[in-house]
Amino acid sequence: MPAPSTMTVREAAESCRAIRTFVQQEVPEDDLREILRQTRLAPSPDNFQPWRFVVVRDSELRARMLPAELNQHQVASAQALIVLYADMEDVLANVDEMIHPGFDEAGRAKVRAAFTRRFGAQSKKERGNYAHGLAYVALGYLLLAAESMGYQTSPTLEFKPEEIKTVLGLPAHVTIPALVAIGKGAEPGFPHHRHSVERIARFV
Amino acid sequence: MPAPSTMTVREAAESCRAIRTFVQQEVPEDDLREILRQTRLAPSPDNFQPWRFVVVRDSELRARMLPAELNQHQVASAQALIVLYADMEDVLANVDEMIHPGFDEAGRAKVRAAFTRRFGAQSKKERGNYAHGLAYVALGYLLLAAESMGYQTSPTLEFKPEEIKTVLGLPAHVTIPALVAIGKGAEPGFPHHRHSVERIARFV
Repeated sequence: MPAPSTMTVREAAESCRAIRTFVQQEVPEDDLREILRQTRLAPSPDNFQPWRFVVVRDSELRARMLPAELNQHQVASAQALIVLYADMEDVLANVDEMIHPGFDEAGRAKVRAAFTRRFGAQSKKERGNYAHGLAYVALGYLLLAAESMGYQTSPTLEFKPEEIKTVLGLPAHVTIPALVAIGKGAEPGFPHHRHSVERIARFV
Repeated sequence: MPAPSTMTVREAAESCRAIRTFVQQEVPEDDLREILRQTRLAPSPDNFQPWRFVVVRDSELRARMLPAELNQHQVASAQALIVLYADMEDVLANVDEMIHPGFDEAGRAKVRAAFTRRFGAQSKKERGNYAHGLAYVALGYLLLAAESMGYQTSPTLEFKPEEIKTVLGLPAHVTIPALVAIGKGAEPGFPHHRHSVERIARFV
């Protein structure tokens, strides 16, 4: 049984902060699977779900990845690392998988044709950028899911994606929106410093 | 007092689905502010928080926006619409605001210089794209925060951003990652159809 989700969304958002040092204790695979089970529920246009994951716990592999992670302390300290990548070519090659079973065959054909027409007309780079941005919705889900289950995280966007792809054997066309170090935090992290709602929102 | 956050992250992720029809009932401003208060806690590199919001409830304005929203039924049906936009120029013009107060002056100067050097060297379009993608982390937070407070949402990426910007008087350089219709759902929405964890994740 994986750890239960115990925090409300508000509690998780309020307590979630970037952690620099993690307790040296293994993160059970069941818990990591449950975090991804919740993460994958994130919505996407046409349900295209561009997010893919490699969960790295093998210490030899982690050591080989470290230079590509710029030897960041918080990444090295975590017992598990979730590589969030986006694979629009996989999406496009398997459009049928994403179409809701509630559609009848005519409906499926319509969605399939529209999606294939729209993205087939774009370059790999262009549609890859689109998928890359959308994958951050899943990152928001992932961070809150982990926090609510009693884990802490440290996401980073500072790394050498090409080298990470080489070490993990990922296809050249994928992009990596983020790496997420995960474990039990060994420190509380800094309090939030955020803009006020008044600073960033207008009500009309 | 805004509505409390009552669902755990898991419950919110499991129950959150795109809603097509909303109850015709006003969404209190207090609740919308509380949703954004939680949303703004989303993390970003260097804490740069590129997300900005316009919450539109005025019926005359909503009517004027509808053609730019491609007259989508679910958008028209909702009593409130949250326009999520990204403004990297605002970030870059106000770097000091984002730097954590825990930094001393030397630390602040270092962050300020590195950030300004990195993004100042990019075109508005390039750094705008970066901010646009990152803003989707906040979208993930927003959807879960709303759900946990008893609201339902329908995010859309299908609209005419330039026209929305014109109607709302937003600067030309901003981008709009998503519109989010929000209210009390008048229907349960379709059950989730998502890839299995096994399909999208590898454990090594």
